[in-house]
Amino acid sequence: MSAIHHIAIAVHNLDAALAFYRDALGLGMTERREVPEEGVEIAFLPAGEGEIELLQPLSEGGGVARFLEKRGEGLHHICLQVDDIEAAMERLRSAGARLLSEEPRVGTSGTRYVFVHPKSAHGVLLELYEVAE
Amino acid sequence: MSAIHHIAIAVHNLDAALAFYRDALGLGMTERREVPEEGVEIAFLPAGEGEIELLQPLSEGGGVARFLEKRGEGLHHICLQVDDIEAAMERLRSAGARLLSEEPRVGTSGTRYVFVHPKSAHGVLLELYEVAE
Repeated sequence: MSAIHHIAIAVHNLDAALAFYRDALGLGMTERREVPEEGVEIAFLPAGEGEIELLQPLSEGGGVARFLEKRGEGLHHICLQVDDIEAAMERLRSAGARLLSEEPRVGTSGTRYVFVHPKSAHGVLLELYEVAE
Repeated sequence: MSAIHHIAIAVHNLDAALAFYRDALGLGMTERREVPEEGVEIAFLPAGEGEIELLQPLSEGGGVARFLEKRGEGLHHICLQVDDIEAAMERLRSAGARLLSEEPRVGTSGTRYVFVHPKSAHGVLLELYEVAE
């Protein structure tokens, strides 16, 4: 178990959020792109070894859009790096934690990740992301 | 502007939260102590250059207790390191952001910090913590 990989913040409008996080706070931005398969546009703002990700829904009905309707803007999920995602999933399952997928999901870059249900993680939507050593 | 210093999670019961974050997830714990002036007991779990902080209220009526009543367990605030807190505060004020104190507050170890109001930080209670280079 290792570093904080990213903190994701759900926002209504990426431009307005960038005016705060990038322009006023002074974080850099490495990338901004749409991820249609997840229904969001994302801006990536590195902070040390981790990053802040700003998520704006591309349409109504997706997970981030529902989050915004229910709770308003704010912290959406956090992601921790693990070096062996299957070992981490096995340990969590043994402890009775609920995972959002049976197997690790595979991102477009080939990286593997899984989400832990907030009920198991004390109200936190927790992503684990495998970064091989 | 630099690293993610910590992510704070409000929980009802520190022992139960440690059973997940320390025992099942496998984070280490460096310290656990009461901070009576803030009305909380905190456990510190390092994750790379940052850490996860679990906050349990010591009594009713404090900020974390009110958060739990209103929203339940979950992400409470995030903290970013800055190398010059006064410069950061000045830049934020110029951009119209609302800070929770006029001057930096000083922690028990002499470190200086300030909170940004969630209305200015898109729903996020954001702490800035000065770590001199």
